[in-house]
Amino acid sequence: MASCTACHGRRGEGDAAAGYPRLQGLSAAYQIKQLEAFADGTRKSEIMAPLARSLAARARAQATDYYAGLKAPAHPTAPASAPRDDRLAVRGRWSQEIPGCVECHGASGSGIGAAFPPLAAQPAAYLTAQLRAWQQGARQGDPLGLMQRIASRLSDEDVRAVSEYFSAIPVGGSAPPAAAAAANTGQAPPPEADAGGIESLGGAGGERVFVPADKPIPDDGFGRMVRLGRDIFDDPGRYAGRYVGNSLRCTSCHLDEGRRVGSAPMWAAYVSYPAYRAKNGHVNTFAERLQGCFSYSMNGRAPPLGDAALVALESYSYWMARGAPLDPGIAGRGYLKLPKPALAADRARGAAVYADKCALCHGRNGEGRSANDGSPGFPALWGPDSYNWGAGMVSVSNAAGFIKANMPFSLGNSLTDQDAWDVALFVDSHERPQDPRYSGTVEETRRRFHDSDNSLYGQRVDGHVLGSNSVPPGRRLRRAASAGG
Amino acid sequence: MASCTACHGRRGEGDAAAGYPRLQGLSAAYQIKQLEAFADGTRKSEIMAPLARSLAARARAQATDYYAGLKAPAHPTAPASAPRDDRLAVRGRWSQEIPGCVECHGASGSGIGAAFPPLAAQPAAYLTAQLRAWQQGARQGDPLGLMQRIASRLSDEDVRAVSEYFSAIPVGGSAPPAAAAAANTGQAPPPEADAGGIESLGGAGGERVFVPADKPIPDDGFGRMVRLGRDIFDDPGRYAGRYVGNSLRCTSCHLDEGRRVGSAPMWAAYVSYPAYRAKNGHVNTFAERLQGCFSYSMNGRAPPLGDAALVALESYSYWMARGAPLDPGIAGRGYLKLPKPALAADRARGAAVYADKCALCHGRNGEGRSANDGSPGFPALWGPDSYNWGAGMVSVSNAAGFIKANMPFSLGNSLTDQDAWDVALFVDSHERPQDPRYSGTVEETRRRFHDSDNSLYGQRVDGHVLGSNSVPPGRRLRRAASAGG
Repeated sequence: MASCTACHGRRGEGDAAAGYPRLQGLSAAYQIKQLEAFADGTRKSEIMAPLARSLAARARAQATDYYAGLKAPAHPTAPASAPRDDRLAVRGRWSQEIPGCVECHGASGSGIGAAFPPLAAQPAAYLTAQLRAWQQGARQGDPLGLMQRIASRLSDEDVRAVSEYFSAIPVGGSAPPAAAAAANTGQAPPPEADAGGIESLGGAGGERVFVPADKPIPDDGFGRMVRLGRDIFDDPGRYAGRYVGNSLRCTSCHLDEGRRVGSAPMWAAYVSYPAYRAKNGHVNTFAERLQGCFSYSMNGRAPPLGDAALVALESYSYWMARGAPLDPGIAGRGYLKLPKPALAADRARGAAVYADKCALCHGRNGEGRSANDGSPGFPALWGPDSYNWGAGMVSVSNAAGFIKANMPFSLGNSLTDQDAWDVALFVDSHERPQDPRYSGTVEETRRRFHDSDNSLYGQRVDGHVLGSNSVPPGRRLRRAASAGG
Repeated sequence: MASCTACHGRRGEGDAAAGYPRLQGLSAAYQIKQLEAFADGTRKSEIMAPLARSLAARARAQATDYYAGLKAPAHPTAPASAPRDDRLAVRGRWSQEIPGCVECHGASGSGIGAAFPPLAAQPAAYLTAQLRAWQQGARQGDPLGLMQRIASRLSDEDVRAVSEYFSAIPVGGSAPPAAAAAANTGQAPPPEADAGGIESLGGAGGERVFVPADKPIPDDGFGRMVRLGRDIFDDPGRYAGRYVGNSLRCTSCHLDEGRRVGSAPMWAAYVSYPAYRAKNGHVNTFAERLQGCFSYSMNGRAPPLGDAALVALESYSYWMARGAPLDPGIAGRGYLKLPKPALAADRARGAAVYADKCALCHGRNGEGRSANDGSPGFPALWGPDSYNWGAGMVSVSNAAGFIKANMPFSLGNSLTDQDAWDVALFVDSHERPQDPRYSGTVEETRRRFHDSDNSLYGQRVDGHVLGSNSVPPGRRLRRAASAGG
């Protein structure tokens, strides 16, 4: 233990000046994995290698349990007052397949499970050193090679910005004032990535698609509504909680805060409504379309028309879509249309793909994972905290298109079409919350709503008829209500 | 009388084959004016000139009273089954300052008052001969020179289409199947005027403004909603009557069925919302903005969000705006911004302009006029059947801009700026229905809602404080309700 405390401190607080990381509250499994990596050289450190090799298994367990059990003081470091550039940390740079760091490390950098360690309050020098190590191969063994790949796409300036951003978040705190916010306080906005517009080349295949302008949201009456819409979009459970019944966020299906082609971008949806929808047999306004997301994908309940949540999301979508032409056939709308695979989709093959590529984030039983501070993490893909049987994602073709284009994060378009179909079938052949349009029997509900939607609702899988054991919709809503939440 | 019946028939039914017009039900004043014109040569006719000169005043009165008092049989002619090209008759061609014929002759061609004779069921040959006569100066003396000017802009094909259109409407009937409808029954659509788009030169000064595509509305689920929206737009009292409390139509302020630049075109409004409005201090969706039109301009009540009337109007506006970029600063939005005049606006001068140019259609007391069959005609500009004190048109600058750009019909931009300001002040200095936001006293209502809207609400005019004698809003709604309508 004495050998640990020399650098990491008696309470595992680390040493910001020297760049030694904080160990307080780090999961024991993560710590042990790192010690093994130091010992076998997949994580290179002249200091840690001999120490790790010398630690017997029992001593490792004692030390890591000790640090894992320590609670950090609420604000061990003074919160940074200067705004930080949050663009890469929060939003990522999806044009290079770089998700925001917060997608896997939690909105406040608190980490998610054992595989995605906390970044908040780690010394900037430590974070920078680690990103360099990933870039140079001095650190390896990351699951799916995620960090090596992502780090390799970062510039020196990216590394600096990200390290500063997370080092400025106190443990148990929330994100520091960001540059996007700073733009609204009279400070200079970040440099613009591009002006956006329909002329931009944004498609994967070089097709001409609209790219939203990357402009700061103005600080006026409209801008405040746009910002509320973005907040809801990022974390609907927090900002529109009474309408949300599961663990999903808008960004779960609409990546890059609704901008990304291949994940039903909001700018394309906005310019496509009002439109007739076969799903409910009448002309839907954009507001009604948003209601559908709450009822089905969020397994919640529809905000009434005119509710601030809907107005905010409509404002946010409009703001993002400015400059796009009204056009229901706009390029980039919806999900990737994947050609049918050579072999019929197969659940057993899908299960293998899932275990290999998906379980890391979404959990072995599709249950998803919250961040370590309880904020949203990875969405549940089936079960009571996932989308219900009325959602568009129960369509296996929708799911396959989404998965192919976007999954795993930073590895979009790496799965074969066959893998995408197989794993989509596997995911969508599990039980999930009942269809809110449930008419009393699974058979009739299937006939009325699912005969043409390419879903497995009402079909028999391993002896179980899907939909016959669904939890009622809004389970989480009622739970929250009975808890007074 | 015998000399009349030889050509016009004993019951004044005319002679379609010979092109002799129907006289049944024509206003006596109109007939007498025509006889005077035949007599003095401002309307040239070798047959009618000597007859008109020979008729003593008493005989004239007898004959015209006789014909005016005759009721036409409901369907004197078989309704035409072939669809007719309704574009010029109904919609006009505003790019050449040609209003639809129906604007002044009524939606079914029943005529409006004594100045605008019925066109329905007149022989096509007669209508064609009259349009040619206006073109060639063989018929003169039309008020404000309207018909001479409009006829001079018509091609031979225009004359034919318009004559056929109205000749096919039976007396007391409604418009025949039109080409726009025919396009939805598998028949060939009319030739397209242009494909629309932002590249088109549509502005009066040659500025680049969006021009809506001139495409038939498709006959599908969405198209039916669009068509309902257009119907409401043309005649809200008929298609959304329970929300309408006065004599106005959407087209009263939004000419050319909402397309015309200079009259708050709907395509420009559509791409500008959601937006923050100082008028109510929050972000308004397009649907809420439409609600405002019903509450104020239509002096009615707002359809609830999600009501078919709002969805239809939103669908119609979207359909019209397809191809336009989302842009709150889009060129052509709103009304003309007229520079302040050299002299302060003056009611007395405005009254003279009004008597000279406006009273013909809107009535001496601003009361408007219905068509002879009771369908909407010219809107009331003040009094109980006009817009209320909450409408945008109570802003004298809005009214001046609208008048300058659009009034009188076919004479847009003919008034001086000074005339437009003067007559706008005159119109808006009359009493009208109370502001629905009325808070109990005119003073407080003025302070809360009218101190910055450039209206005369709460100001003293000829000893009367405007707003102090307003009828309550929705007067017409209640009247309709108590009549069981």
